[in-house]
Amino acid sequence: MKIAFLGLGRMGSGMAQNLLRAGHELVVYNRTPERMQPLVAQGAKPAASPAEAVQGVDALVTMLADDAAVETVLFGANGAFAALPAGAIHVSSSTLSEAFVVRLAEEHARAGHGFVSAPVFGRPEAAAAGKLRVVVAGTPQFVECARPIFEAIGEAVHVVGTQPQLANVVKLAGNFMIMALLEALGESYALMRKAGIEPLQFLEIINGLFRSPVYENYGRIVAEERFSPAGFAAKLGLKDMRFVLASAERAAAPMPLASLVRDRFLALMAQGGEALDWAALTRIAAMEAGLLSPSKDAS
Amino acid sequence: MKIAFLGLGRMGSGMAQNLLRAGHELVVYNRTPERMQPLVAQGAKPAASPAEAVQGVDALVTMLADDAAVETVLFGANGAFAALPAGAIHVSSSTLSEAFVVRLAEEHARAGHGFVSAPVFGRPEAAAAGKLRVVVAGTPQFVECARPIFEAIGEAVHVVGTQPQLANVVKLAGNFMIMALLEALGESYALMRKAGIEPLQFLEIINGLFRSPVYENYGRIVAEERFSPAGFAAKLGLKDMRFVLASAERAAAPMPLASLVRDRFLALMAQGGEALDWAALTRIAAMEAGLLSPSKDAS
Amino acid sequence: MKIAFLGLGRMGSGMAQNLLRAGHELVVYNRTPERMQPLVAQGAKPAASPAEAVQGVDALVTMLADDAAVETVLFGANGAFAALPAGAIHVSSSTLSEAFVVRLAEEHARAGHGFVSAPVFGRPEAAAAGKLRVVVAGTPQFVECARPIFEAIGEAVHVVGTQPQLANVVKLAGNFMIMALLEALGESYALMRKAGIEPLQFLEIINGLFRSPVYENYGRIVAEERFSPAGFAAKLGLKDMRFVLASAERAAAPMPLASLVRDRFLALMAQGGEALDWAALTRIAAMEAGLLSPSKDAS
Amino acid sequence: MKIAFLGLGRMGSGMAQNLLRAGHELVVYNRTPERMQPLVAQGAKPAASPAEAVQGVDALVTMLADDAAVETVLFGANGAFAALPAGAIHVSSSTLSEAFVVRLAEEHARAGHGFVSAPVFGRPEAAAAGKLRVVVAGTPQFVECARPIFEAIGEAVHVVGTQPQLANVVKLAGNFMIMALLEALGESYALMRKAGIEPLQFLEIINGLFRSPVYENYGRIVAEERFSPAGFAAKLGLKDMRFVLASAERAAAPMPLASLVRDRFLALMAQGGEALDWAALTRIAAMEAGLLSPSKDAS
Repeated sequence: MKIAFLGLGRMGSGMAQNLLRAGHELVVYNRTPERMQPLVAQGAKPAASPAEAVQGVDALVTMLADDAAVETVLFGANGAFAALPAGAIHVSSSTLSEAFVVRLAEEHARAGHGFVSAPVFGRPEAAAAGKLRVVVAGTPQFVECARPIFEAIGEAVHVVGTQPQLANVVKLAGNFMIMALLEALGESYALMRKAGIEPLQFLEIINGLFRSPVYENYGRIVAEERFSPAGFAAKLGLKDMRFVLASAERAAAPMPLASLVRDRFLALMAQGGEALDWAALTRIAAMEAGLLSPSKDAS
Repeated sequence: MKIAFLGLGRMGSGMAQNLLRAGHELVVYNRTPERMQPLVAQGAKPAASPAEAVQGVDALVTMLADDAAVETVLFGANGAFAALPAGAIHVSSSTLSEAFVVRLAEEHARAGHGFVSAPVFGRPEAAAAGKLRVVVAGTPQFVECARPIFEAIGEAVHVVGTQPQLANVVKLAGNFMIMALLEALGESYALMRKAGIEPLQFLEIINGLFRSPVYENYGRIVAEERFSPAGFAAKLGLKDMRFVLASAERAAAPMPLASLVRDRFLALMAQGGEALDWAALTRIAAMEAGLLSPSKDAS
Repeated sequence: MKIAFLGLGRMGSGMAQNLLRAGHELVVYNRTPERMQPLVAQGAKPAASPAEAVQGVDALVTMLADDAAVETVLFGANGAFAALPAGAIHVSSSTLSEAFVVRLAEEHARAGHGFVSAPVFGRPEAAAAGKLRVVVAGTPQFVECARPIFEAIGEAVHVVGTQPQLANVVKLAGNFMIMALLEALGESYALMRKAGIEPLQFLEIINGLFRSPVYENYGRIVAEERFSPAGFAAKLGLKDMRFVLASAERAAAPMPLASLVRDRFLALMAQGGEALDWAALTRIAAMEAGLLSPSKDAS
Repeated sequence: MKIAFLGLGRMGSGMAQNLLRAGHELVVYNRTPERMQPLVAQGAKPAASPAEAVQGVDALVTMLADDAAVETVLFGANGAFAALPAGAIHVSSSTLSEAFVVRLAEEHARAGHGFVSAPVFGRPEAAAAGKLRVVVAGTPQFVECARPIFEAIGEAVHVVGTQPQLANVVKLAGNFMIMALLEALGESYALMRKAGIEPLQFLEIINGLFRSPVYENYGRIVAEERFSPAGFAAKLGLKDMRFVLASAERAAAPMPLASLVRDRFLALMAQGGEALDWAALTRIAAMEAGLLSPSKDAS
C-alpha cells in the first residue's frame, strides 16, 4: 500500500519503521523535520506538508499527541484532509477524545474517505519491535482494507465495534486501569513508609501476588521515584483522564476513581510536575502523608 | 514440633494438613467439631477446647475470621492463652487489625510466650497445596523457631519486620491492592456496557496488557457476575477495609481510594449483599450507572 | 438606555420587566415568541431575530441556558454579534463556562464592542422583584456604563475584577457551595433515616444552627422530596459542575468535593432524573443507602 | 435538684454556672482542680473524686472530651458509676461515639440508674449565656426528670428519640454539616486565589446568598487563616469524623463526603496540624493547589 504517516514521535517512528519493513511505500511528514531523516534513510519519502504527504495515497496514518494536533494536521494550513483522495482510509492511532473521533468520522464520511480508529497499547520499545496491541473500530470494509497496517505494527489486533469512537473508549479505559493501579500503589507505599516498611519490600510481595509486568515495572518506578525523564508525561495523563471523564459523562456512568485520579493530576500540575512521568501522580498521596515537601521535590 | 491448630475453615484445613504432611505432631480444635474429622483421620489429635489443645505444645497456630474470633479462642471460656506453656510461640495467621495485634504482642510478652504474626496470601486451593505466601513479622528468635511452620504451609516467606503488627499492615495493604483493582474494573465495565462493548471483550485486551492471573480471575468473575457462593465474603472485605483505614489513621496517611472502596462495601451491605463475594463491590458502579436494579439483583 | 434583551425564560422575563420599570427602552427577542407578549404589553418592542433586536441599541443583555444558546443567538443565522453597533456593550448574565467567556471577550474586543460579564444569584422570584445579586467583571469603563442595568435588576452589585470570566468563576463557585450543601444534606438525611430519625426533625436542629434561608429552603425540599417541577433542573446543575471542574483544571486547583457532586449528577442522569430539580442529587446518597429503588422513584 | 457536674472545660464551666444560677445544688469535680474555684466561689461544692461528687445526688452531668475521658470518670479509680445512687440520672452531654453510648445505656440500666444522652450545639460563649441547643434522647420518664437541667443550660431542647445514642448520631451529623461546609469553603477559596480573587470578596457574595452566622464566622476564620488558638481542635474534629463514619457503617449508609473530610483531617495531622482549629482542614485544599508549603506553614 501507499501510506502517508504523520507524527514521528517516539511511538510514531517505530510504527512507521515497521510499515516500511513490511514493504509498504511510505511518505512521511513531521513538524520537526529532523525526525524524518532516519526513515528517509530507510526508504521513506519526505513531504513538506501534510497535504503533500497524502497525494495519491491509499491510506493515511496519524500518531499525534492530542485532539488539537490532529485538528492542525488535518484541517490547518496545508492540511491533509482536503488533499486526501476519495476512497483513501484514515487510520487514526492517537489517543483522542470520543467526541473528537465522532466528529472525524462524520467529516470523513461526508468527504468520501474511509476512517478507522486504531489506538495502540504499548511503550516506544513495543512500537519499535512491532509488538503493539492495536484496538480497532470502524466500518468492517475499511477495517479489512487497513488490516495490513495493523499487522505490520502490532502483535495483536482487537476489533471492538463498528463505530470508530469505541476504540478510543477502550483505549482510554485501559489507560485508566493503569492510572488506578498507580493511585493504589501510591497510597499503599505512603502507608508502608509511615509504618516503617520499605516500598520495594512491599512490592516484592505484591509481585508474588499479581505476577504482572505492569506492576513490576511501575512498582519499581514509583518506589525509586524515577519520574524524569518521563516515559509518558503527566500532562498527557491528565489529558487522558479528561477524556475518560468526558466519556463517562456521555455514557452517564459515574467513575469516582477516575475523578480521584484526575484530582491527583491537578495537584501534581499545581506542584509543577507536568513534565514528570504520569507515575508521579503517586507523589500526591506521599505529600498528603507528610512524606514530601511539594515545592522542593517537584522542581 | 508439637503444634496446636485452632480454626479449621477452608484456609485453616489446608494449612493444618500441610503441617501434618511435614511430620509435625498436631492437635486440632474447631468450634464445629465435624471439621476436625478429616484431619483426625490423617493423624491429628482432636481437642475439646482451645485450652486442652495447647497442653504441652511448642507452638499454637490460629487461623480465624477476625479479631473477635481470636479474642474468644484465646481469652474466652477455656481459652488457649492461660493454658499456653511459657516459651511456646503463638503464630497468628488471621487477617487482624493492627491495634489488636499490638495488644496480642503485649499480652504474650507479659505472659512469657513467643508471638509471631504471619498472615497469608492465597485462596483455599493454595492453602491445600502448601503454596501460600506468608508475610511474617516478630522478634527474630521467634521467627526462626517458627520457620518450619511457614515452610510447611507456604511457597514463599517474607519477613517484613520485628514488630508483629507490620505483617498485618502488609497483608491489609495487599488486600487493598486487590480491592482497588476491583473498583477500577467495576467502573471500566460500567463504562463499556453503556458504550456498547462487552466486558469480556474489554477484559481480553486488559489481560494482554497486564498479564496477571489476578486480573484474569477477577476480570472473569466480575464480567460473569459470579458472586455466589463467595470465595471471600463482602462482609470480610468490609472488615479488611475498616482495618486498612484504621492503619491509615494510625499512620496519618490519607487513603482516599481505600475510603472509596469502603463506601462501596457499605452500599453493597445496604443492598443486602453481605454474603456475596467481595468482587460484588463492582455492582455499585453498575447500579450508579443505571445498569442494575439494586433490590432485585442483590437478593 | 436603549437595550436589547435576549432570553425570556423565568429569570430573563423578570429581569426584562425591571429594566422596563426603570424607564429603559427595551427591544426583546425570544425563540418561543409567546414569551414576549407580557413584556410587549408593558411597552417593550418585539424583534423577529437577534440581529433585528440589536439595531441601534446602547446595550445587549443576554440571559440564556448555556454556552451553546449564547453561541447561537450571537453567531448563528441572524445573530446579534454582527449587527451589534460598535461601542455598544454586551452584558452577559448567563452562567457560562470560563473558557467561553474568555472567547466572547476576545471577539467583542476585536469588533469594537464593550463586554461585561454579569451573572446573577437568585431564584425567579428575586428576578421578578429586582432583588438579584449581580456579580460583575469587565473593563471599568464598560462596567460603569452598564451600572444602570445592574441597579435595575439587582439589590446588590459585586464587582470582582476586570477580566470578564472572573465573574463566571465566582458564580460557578457560588453554585458549587449550594451543591456541596445538598450533598451534605443528602448524606445526613440518609444516615438519619436509617438510624430512625425523621429528616425534618434533623432539619429543625440544623436550622437552629445555621439560621440560613438556603438551608431552610433546600432542607425542606429534600426532606419532602419535592423535585418536580424543577426550580433549577439537574441537567443544568451538571452543566455547572462541568464548568466548575473546567475552571478547577484551568487553575490547577483540585476540588474533590466538586468531583463527588459531578459524579452524583451523572448517577442521577443514569436513573433518568435529568428533568428533576438539582436538589435531587441527594437521591443518590439515599439510593446507595438502600432507601430508594432507583428505577421506580426516578420515573 | 442536687446535681454532680464532671468536666469543667470551657463548655462545662459555662453550663455548670447556669445550673447554679437556676438554683440547683451543685457538686463539681475536675481533674485540674483550679478550674473548680470560680464555681465554688459562686456556691458550688468541690469534690475530691468523681465518686465523692455523686454522693446523694439526683443527677450527674458529664461534659468531657471523648469516650475515653467518660470511661475514666465513670469506671476508673474512684469512678462515679459505682457510687451513683440507684434512681439517679446520668445526663451525658459529651460528643461520644454511638457504640459507647449504647454500652453506657446498658450499664446504667443494669445498675438501676436513669440515663439520658444530651449533647449540645454551641460555642463556649453560648454555654456561658445558657443559650446552647440541647439534643436529647432517652426513656421519656428520665428525659422529663432531667428537663430542668436542659432548660437551665439551653435555649432550645430537641428530643429526638427514646434510644440515647440517637442524640449522638444527630450531634455527629450536625458537626459533619459544619465540616462539609469547611471543605466546600476550602475548595472554593483555593479556586478563587488561583483565579486572582480575594477570598474575603468571595465571602461577601456568599454571605449575601446564605445569610448564615456559621458561614460568616468560619468564612472569615478561613480567609484570615486564624487557626490558632483553636476554638475546637482538629484532633477532636478527626475524632468526630471517626464517630460519624462508625455510625455510617452501623447504619450501612455510605457517606463519601464524610470520608473526604476524614482524609483531609488525616492529611492535616500528617502536616503537624493536630492542635490547630478544625477549620484548618481547609489547608489541605490549599496545599494541593500549590498555595501552601505544608512543612513551613503548619508548624
